[in-house]
Amino acid sequence: MTERITSVETIDVRFPTSRHRDGSDAMNPFPDYSAAYILLRTSAGAEGHGLVFTVGRGTEIQVAAVQSLAAMVVGQPVDELVADPGALARRLVGDSQIRWLGPEKGVVHMAAGGLVNAVWDLAARRAGKPLWKLLADLTPEQLVAQVDFRYLRDALTEQEALALLRTAADGRADRERILVTEGYPAYTTTPGWLGYDDEKLARLCKEAVEAGYQLIKLKVGGNLADDVRRMGIAREAVGPDIRIAVDANQIWGVPEAIAWMRELARFDPYWIEEPTSPDDVLGHAAVRKALAPVKVATGEHVHNAVMFKQLLQADAVDVVQIDACRVAGVNENLAILLLAAKFGVPVCPHAGGVGLCELVQHLAMFDFVALSGSTDDRAIEYVDHLHEHFTDPVRISGGRYLAPQAPGMSAEIVPAALSDYRYPDGPEWAAGTTGAATA
Amino acid sequence: MTERITSVETIDVRFPTSRHRDGSDAMNPFPDYSAAYILLRTSAGAEGHGLVFTVGRGTEIQVAAVQSLAAMVVGQPVDELVADPGALARRLVGDSQIRWLGPEKGVVHMAAGGLVNAVWDLAARRAGKPLWKLLADLTPEQLVAQVDFRYLRDALTEQEALALLRTAADGRADRERILVTEGYPAYTTTPGWLGYDDEKLARLCKEAVEAGYQLIKLKVGGNLADDVRRMGIAREAVGPDIRIAVDANQIWGVPEAIAWMRELARFDPYWIEEPTSPDDVLGHAAVRKALAPVKVATGEHVHNAVMFKQLLQADAVDVVQIDACRVAGVNENLAILLLAAKFGVPVCPHAGGVGLCELVQHLAMFDFVALSGSTDDRAIEYVDHLHEHFTDPVRISGGRYLAPQAPGMSAEIVPAALSDYRYPDGPEWAAGTTGAATA
Repeated sequence: MTERITSVETIDVRFPTSRHRDGSDAMNPFPDYSAAYILLRTSAGAEGHGLVFTVGRGTEIQVAAVQSLAAMVVGQPVDELVADPGALARRLVGDSQIRWLGPEKGVVHMAAGGLVNAVWDLAARRAGKPLWKLLADLTPEQLVAQVDFRYLRDALTEQEALALLRTAADGRADRERILVTEGYPAYTTTPGWLGYDDEKLARLCKEAVEAGYQLIKLKVGGNLADDVRRMGIAREAVGPDIRIAVDANQIWGVPEAIAWMRELARFDPYWIEEPTSPDDVLGHAAVRKALAPVKVATGEHVHNAVMFKQLLQADAVDVVQIDACRVAGVNENLAILLLAAKFGVPVCPHAGGVGLCELVQHLAMFDFVALSGSTDDRAIEYVDHLHEHFTDPVRISGGRYLAPQAPGMSAEIVPAALSDYRYPDGPEWAAGTTGAATA
Repeated sequence: MTERITSVETIDVRFPTSRHRDGSDAMNPFPDYSAAYILLRTSAGAEGHGLVFTVGRGTEIQVAAVQSLAAMVVGQPVDELVADPGALARRLVGDSQIRWLGPEKGVVHMAAGGLVNAVWDLAARRAGKPLWKLLADLTPEQLVAQVDFRYLRDALTEQEALALLRTAADGRADRERILVTEGYPAYTTTPGWLGYDDEKLARLCKEAVEAGYQLIKLKVGGNLADDVRRMGIAREAVGPDIRIAVDANQIWGVPEAIAWMRELARFDPYWIEEPTSPDDVLGHAAVRKALAPVKVATGEHVHNAVMFKQLLQADAVDVVQIDACRVAGVNENLAILLLAAKFGVPVCPHAGGVGLCELVQHLAMFDFVALSGSTDDRAIEYVDHLHEHFTDPVRISGGRYLAPQAPGMSAEIVPAALSDYRYPDGPEWAAGTTGAATA
């Protein structure tokens, strides 16, 4: 009997993080970190887990999108799926009717990404490897075959991608050993949420340095006087040698971003993240030119590889921030990692939320072992929320992510959390003791 | 008693257009023109109609998105809603949790657009005016207050927008009279669907010229030899003086678009539409530079005003193709019309599908009367499908749209069509006599 996908279960799971303003920023004052959680089951009893991260209201739309696309996954033969997740990614992204709803953007694209990631999780479990290792063990030819180059060839051809991967073959075994023994650099956003008071900010900044972080991040963009005061507190707390990135979460237009950041320049910010609309390639380029040497970073809301291509072509970013759940899964993130490598721009993945740290670490670690070959000026975002709900949570030590060893993509949430926080009928919500703040 | 919105009904309605390959192109071989149809009702018994156009599978996701956002509309006081639909648009687009699913793109953004358009339909019905007239009668100050300039000011400020509208006040009454007596130019895509055979193509081309059209459009990008042959047939059928636009529906990458179009250049194509990904601003600029004097057109899949802003800033388009249902409704299309006017680029709206002609004509006619003041090199797309299902269908005469006179945005579908084509339980679908082809 051919092993097939027998079901795709989708669960709306929401954590009431808005109660303590964890995750609060200029654009998201009261997020409830949530997910459209995806569980594939096969006729042989195997599982693949995935999720699409959301921040509360609207998760039901994301669930509906996953359920619609799931029709293209149920019944598929597992051997073929796991041998070539790229074929599934092309079918999901390219369906000639559903494509009208994007193309390649928004909830439909993220639904494709969640399903594709769940298939990669299944593939890695079957291979008995963590995903980063599964990817790093693929040949350059296999990796390139997983990428859709249709709209990318004016910036990156298949041949150029192959050459990048073949060059990186040198020293791969050494880098894998370094990764496993030393881990991968992390940076922390824990101190800098906009809803935290000054005392908490100063205390968490000092704790971050003591914990070994070389880079911390502060949310900005609510009020200029507050930002000046908070940046001063943070700089004093961490000293001159620790990098402080700032993140406006898209709150500004282009002229406003430039004017506001000039007021913060005296505190030596390392990068300004999401200064304006994530769609505004030319706007980011203008901000970068005006604010150099402050770097410009974006990516958590950059919706596909075509947009990343342009950010690189336009010299609009110094830091590429991939996100595990925004684009169409591992395959499209491979394309983005290849583009970043071609343009020589470091990748510092976006994480936090629910499971973003767990998922995206695999991509950065693959990149170090088998593509860019470097961790210089690179770090994966780390936020210390909600990891307790995962079966294979990230492990942080000395300001570094330790390489996951369990087979899969580390996406699995424990059953108790799925049932407790299921929305709207899980006990954490149905009891009415917690409630989503609105803003 | 304050009049309030009491319900938002959403209907999944699909027309089995794929059976005759009406609407077939290189990217959409078998579309079933569909809509997430929206009906607002008020406590005083008034109605507002809107829709989001889709092409078959996935319409249920669009319906789910409208239903989620509808919670922000039900219960709202009608006087305030219709006096300032822009306030609703900002709330729908800016909800701090739902925003994560975009921002400003995909099904969530289109759902906001459908609801905002339904409110404008309600507003125009209450005012007893067709929407184009309601808009043209607003003052420059009122119009500018309906636009969100947050991400646009590096290209267009409120002051510049006001100046454009004030300049256009001259001659407004004359242009309104011209519009009502002569209509607005149309172009036709009816001859050129990719699924039509050569005989049908030639016959429909000749009929289009006889009907008074000065511009026709052919779908291209399936097969180069076929395109060369079909372009030859079309050029011979219409003669040298009728403009022939071609439309690739995003099938190509940038180098491929340039190479392919060079083979068609001998037939004097007027514009190449959607040569590549709608997200690729820099790609469109490269194609335009390589192919001049052939013009470049795009817009039906350009997901928000930030993207249109960049297409104009980068000199990437000669023709801006607004779509009534892609962006967040009338308000965001006002922003796009203002941007196009600022950059001096003509607007030729995308239409066809279900109701796109009915809706978008109002925006082009407003633009002629009160903003650009011109119909030179402008035309609204026309396709002769499915108009019979509307209570106020477009009227075409001599290759021109006649100005609608009925109050509203012409979005209302007759009840019989809504019940007959309701998916999946309407008789046209439940009977199993029609079926969506897949590709």
